[in-house]
Amino acid sequence: MQRLAGKDIFPQVQAKLAEEVARLSESGISVTLAVILVGEDPASQIYVASKERTCGELGIGSLVTRLPAETTQAELLELVQQYNEDPQINGILVQVPLPAPLDEDEVLQAISPDKDVDCFHPYNLGLLTAGLARFVPCTPFGVLQFLKHHQIPTSGKKIVILGRSNIFGRPMSILLSQKPWDATVTLCHSRTQNLAEECRQADILIAAIGKPMLVTKDFIKPGAVVIDVGINRIADPNHPKGSRVVGDVDYEGIASVASAATPVPGGVGISTIAMLMYNVVNAARFANGLEAFEL
Amino acid sequence: MQRLAGKDIFPQVQAKLAEEVARLSESGISVTLAVILVGEDPASQIYVASKERTCGELGIGSLVTRLPAETTQAELLELVQQYNEDPQINGILVQVPLPAPLDEDEVLQAISPDKDVDCFHPYNLGLLTAGLARFVPCTPFGVLQFLKHHQIPTSGKKIVILGRSNIFGRPMSILLSQKPWDATVTLCHSRTQNLAEECRQADILIAAIGKPMLVTKDFIKPGAVVIDVGINRIADPNHPKGSRVVGDVDYEGIASVASAATPVPGGVGISTIAMLMYNVVNAARFANGLEAFEL
Repeated sequence: MQRLAGKDIFPQVQAKLAEEVARLSESGISVTLAVILVGEDPASQIYVASKERTCGELGIGSLVTRLPAETTQAELLELVQQYNEDPQINGILVQVPLPAPLDEDEVLQAISPDKDVDCFHPYNLGLLTAGLARFVPCTPFGVLQFLKHHQIPTSGKKIVILGRSNIFGRPMSILLSQKPWDATVTLCHSRTQNLAEECRQADILIAAIGKPMLVTKDFIKPGAVVIDVGINRIADPNHPKGSRVVGDVDYEGIASVASAATPVPGGVGISTIAMLMYNVVNAARFANGLEAFEL
Repeated sequence: MQRLAGKDIFPQVQAKLAEEVARLSESGISVTLAVILVGEDPASQIYVASKERTCGELGIGSLVTRLPAETTQAELLELVQQYNEDPQINGILVQVPLPAPLDEDEVLQAISPDKDVDCFHPYNLGLLTAGLARFVPCTPFGVLQFLKHHQIPTSGKKIVILGRSNIFGRPMSILLSQKPWDATVTLCHSRTQNLAEECRQADILIAAIGKPMLVTKDFIKPGAVVIDVGINRIADPNHPKGSRVVGDVDYEGIASVASAATPVPGGVGISTIAMLMYNVVNAARFANGLEAFEL
């Protein structure tokens, strides 16, 4: 089974983006991402720090605003509005989840669709659904890069996606059944009957259902390509930390059946931030009347 | 095989809507649909006349503007804008297809999402994709009424949809895989390999691919429910007109295998206009701070 590692793809993607940011800068176009972090969630703090660091590496300006958990909805909306109107800001990212009782849907819908680099705004999601996407949500976009890099054919192929989340499974299923991917897509979820049988039909199986190592050998059609989007922390007394991160796929278990698979960690994980940066670069290009950057 | 006729459902739907329009009127709320027809396309003229007549039957005001084929994009956009701003207009429908060289996407996106009763605007399509639909496109919405009326279970069931159009197959596939329908949905299209085999897995098969009687007996799992959204005119020398209308399904041919099916004509066809009227009534309710009308 071929190991599809993220490091074979995304460092090059980031290098191309850094070159493009430099070219834009020579044309007098700066690229800046504003990030809003509300509260003290440890995972969110790590994600935001990582985005800030990657911006720095690529020459993208980052403006990180850390707000207390007691921030009101009105204060948060006012800040978003201020960034919407600021021509120096190209992308706006509100780190989710927001602490209660903040209304996440309302905040995400308040971000200007032109600066919505996560592609969470209904207008951008609707453009994607209609086949007119300007931005693509970062994690599905990362999976498309794996398929492209390894020249894995999708047209007319059977793709099964596990998990119907709005940030991954739903847009992934829509994209892959559109041109130019043209796959026959089945979207499975918690209510699906005969899950293993559905999955065994897949030429490409994409798991994002949040269940540690749910996908075992008997889910896999011989020769299938398996993409694992799951990130689950499980207890492991043999591990120094007492726990370790695993995907939704039993990577070792499927090795004798699948032709290729992404490991966890080391697979899809690092793609998300690279594709976020791609969206930020595009937001700056669009704001200056340029077309999308070709990776 | 049970015959699922549209007339068993939609006259009652329209009767309920007429009662609701009367109730709204008593509360001082009028309901009005504006229809814009550009050019002389005979089919479009028939559709518009039918919408106008149904509005009349339900007590919904209709304002039909017929414009010459030479209308410019700017003139059309100005009229849409005028209707967007007119509080007396609740729904706006631009009859498609528009004559060349008018830009259909731009016109449809110019309609206020609050008055977009066809649910063609990316914002409304995005809300639908995110599971937050305010409006549902009329034909998929009609199909949901068949499933509801006949209490056909969908949760965990396998549904195969033939055809990935933005006005039917795409939103239908999204809706049926969401709560409360919770089906496992496969979206097939022109590039799908082994089409009959895919379809034979379906507990519910929904055809909207625009190919006369493509779906034959060997596409059907014994006991499946078949919904035929196709409307195709084929030559028939035995018919007085020299042609007749058929669906995408060979209705007679599948009768020994399927448990139930919608005929063409007589099935889904009349649902679309009823659901359009439902959306117009809701647009008026939303504009007055009311919730969606429960059918």
